[in-house]
Amino acid sequence: MFEARLLNSAIFKKVLDAIKDLLNEGSFDCSDSGIQLQAMDNSHVSLVSLNLKSDGFDKYRCDRNLILGMNLASLAKVFKSSGEGDTVTIKAQDDADTVSFMFEAKKQDKISDYEMKLMNLDQEHLGIPDTEFSCIIKMPSAEYARIIRDLSQFGESIVISCTKEGVKFSASGDIGTGNVKLAQTINFDKEEDSVVIDMQEPVTLTFACQYLNSFAKATPLSNQVTLSMCDNVPLVVEYEIPDLGYLRYYLAPKIEEDEN
Amino acid sequence: MFEARLLNSAIFKKVLDAIKDLLNEGSFDCSDSGIQLQAMDNSHVSLVSLNLKSDGFDKYRCDRNLILGMNLASLAKVFKSSGEGDTVTIKAQDDADTVSFMFEAKKQDKISDYEMKLMNLDQEHLGIPDTEFSCIIKMPSAEYARIIRDLSQFGESIVISCTKEGVKFSASGDIGTGNVKLAQTINFDKEEDSVVIDMQEPVTLTFACQYLNSFAKATPLSNQVTLSMCDNVPLVVEYEIPDLGYLRYYLAPKIEEDEN
Amino acid sequence: MFEARLLNSAIFKKVLDAIKDLLNEGSFDCSDSGIQLQAMDNSHVSLVSLNLKSDGFDKYRCDRNLILGMNLASLAKVFKSSGEGDTVTIKAQDDADTVSFMFEAKKQDKISDYEMKLMNLDQEHLGIPDTEFSCIIKMPSAEYARIIRDLSQFGESIVISCTKEGVKFSASGDIGTGNVKLAQTINFDKEEDSVVIDMQEPVTLTFACQYLNSFAKATPLSNQVTLSMCDNVPLVVEYEIPDLGYLRYYLAPKIEEDEN
Repeated sequence: MFEARLLNSAIFKKVLDAIKDLLNEGSFDCSDSGIQLQAMDNSHVSLVSLNLKSDGFDKYRCDRNLILGMNLASLAKVFKSSGEGDTVTIKAQDDADTVSFMFEAKKQDKISDYEMKLMNLDQEHLGIPDTEFSCIIKMPSAEYARIIRDLSQFGESIVISCTKEGVKFSASGDIGTGNVKLAQTINFDKEEDSVVIDMQEPVTLTFACQYLNSFAKATPLSNQVTLSMCDNVPLVVEYEIPDLGYLRYYLAPKIEEDEN
Repeated sequence: MFEARLLNSAIFKKVLDAIKDLLNEGSFDCSDSGIQLQAMDNSHVSLVSLNLKSDGFDKYRCDRNLILGMNLASLAKVFKSSGEGDTVTIKAQDDADTVSFMFEAKKQDKISDYEMKLMNLDQEHLGIPDTEFSCIIKMPSAEYARIIRDLSQFGESIVISCTKEGVKFSASGDIGTGNVKLAQTINFDKEEDSVVIDMQEPVTLTFACQYLNSFAKATPLSNQVTLSMCDNVPLVVEYEIPDLGYLRYYLAPKIEEDEN
Repeated sequence: MFEARLLNSAIFKKVLDAIKDLLNEGSFDCSDSGIQLQAMDNSHVSLVSLNLKSDGFDKYRCDRNLILGMNLASLAKVFKSSGEGDTVTIKAQDDADTVSFMFEAKKQDKISDYEMKLMNLDQEHLGIPDTEFSCIIKMPSAEYARIIRDLSQFGESIVISCTKEGVKFSASGDIGTGNVKLAQTINFDKEEDSVVIDMQEPVTLTFACQYLNSFAKATPLSNQVTLSMCDNVPLVVEYEIPDLGYLRYYLAPKIEEDEN
């Protein structure tokens, strides 16, 4: 028997919005420690890693490890039906081929339940090695989304350069070139507006706009986003899910003759 | 001479939005008692019945019974031109082939008048028999719209089951199944949030989503909607138009082998 | 060296939104007195005339007269990247083939700079003769936009008639006819709501809706718009850009057998 209950179903809605463009299907690994999802995106370029820890749930019970394979578009439809502030309870029997979702409205007089068929999906076991990163940039997630969107108008790639002083995003194409520079700033009054850089050595890497933009779909999950970079290693874009876990995206840098 | 004046033209705008997808044209029967419109929708499945009583208007005069046949898309364009809070005056001569609409802005310095050609439409006289309904459900109109929209994602039909305890809406399809249950609740502080069920005997009927969704276009007209159901009789979905009348939709249940 | 600095980049954004549908490219004439742009629209029917005076800028330097030819869609992309309240600095070297735009966020920790290639555009020198107008109508710009949009539903042309008492906009077509009348009104409390008519003699002229609608894209620039009319002379639709200059559109009247 698997049962997980969350007082605010909107978090799941946001998680699904953040991954459903990258993944058609997903295998949710449910164990005593929580729910995990790891998968390459549909075009096998980037990697999505979701981790929701069991003690972040309001109720959590997992008698036996389970893999719940689901179509994410269908799952998103189920969660779209949930209202603002609904409580959600996810349930699956140990050997069941269905999973159920129950939404309870705050006022308690409306209960919606949905039952979805599970899918048998090929499991990819992806080892993500621990990396010492050269630069770790923590910045407002809305600012990240804005910069990537703006620069995507100018080219298909974005160069991210990080030094002690700040981080620079650049793009160039037929129209011209654009650079956006953010200086390290610590905002004590409004911590979520801070740009904090933890640098071992400067890094300059180039990434495909398309994926950087897809990752920005996770913006509603968190006020801040963390970019971790190191030469020849995938960029990690992490959104913390408050009290519950994290959503990480991995994207290998582009190798270009003239990377600057 | 026919003349009808309403201080708030927005009500007409909402009525037109609520019917213009179902009906291409409409014959408005104008008499001393008010304005009536009754018509089958374009695909001859559901029935629309609008009743605006004369004493709900700020001025009303109808010397002779008149039938004003109009194209509803054109009429909606005319009313789209009216501003928030405009007064509208509708006028037609007894034998005229045009109808005129005058909108006066609150500030009185802007007057818009429109003249539209009338159409000669075939009149269908539709007798709607009085029915004793088994269940009459009064519920928030926004909740009705929401539930129908959500469940439409799961199938083409919605089953509505009503018992003393509450009402259940269900749909099922390839993705899975969904059920939304509303319990009877009387909210004394916010009467429009109440769900009130008047049941003689339980009913379970199946309807086409498409029409239930079209009816929800009337949501802006009223905080509450009333669903009246009885076996083998069309469902009535009624929106009261405060101080002026009502808009009703009729839809026959689907006959299915396994109706549950 | 050319350099112009404006504390509020949003003004440029609004100017570009107001002209980019009419013009694909634009030659900005930069001189000691300011920046000017004059061009026929893409279909060579209407004329756009923009005038930004140098002392309206927060910093302005123009050592030598320059013509900056730019693709307006690209330029709009650059300004779309600027945030609410950004300061913009435009720079070009005397013989350069590029122009640069630097946006500084209010909080000073984000700097974006863009470099765009200049274009060599054919210069049209358009003499606009001084005209004594028969009627000059000053009215709320939002009201102008609304009336033109509403009447465009009824026909392809709009007749504007001006007398001492007020101004009337009319359109007619298959659906019927529509007239909107605005009386002269002076609103001392809310000056921007006034309709002020300065009439030498009454005028009635007919114009193509499409262009009148395009001009309304300038609505965000100013609370009021001025229409200047005279028989056999192009209509002038002027939006003042507060403290900085103006944007004017010129449109020749339609010559019709029955001009109403």
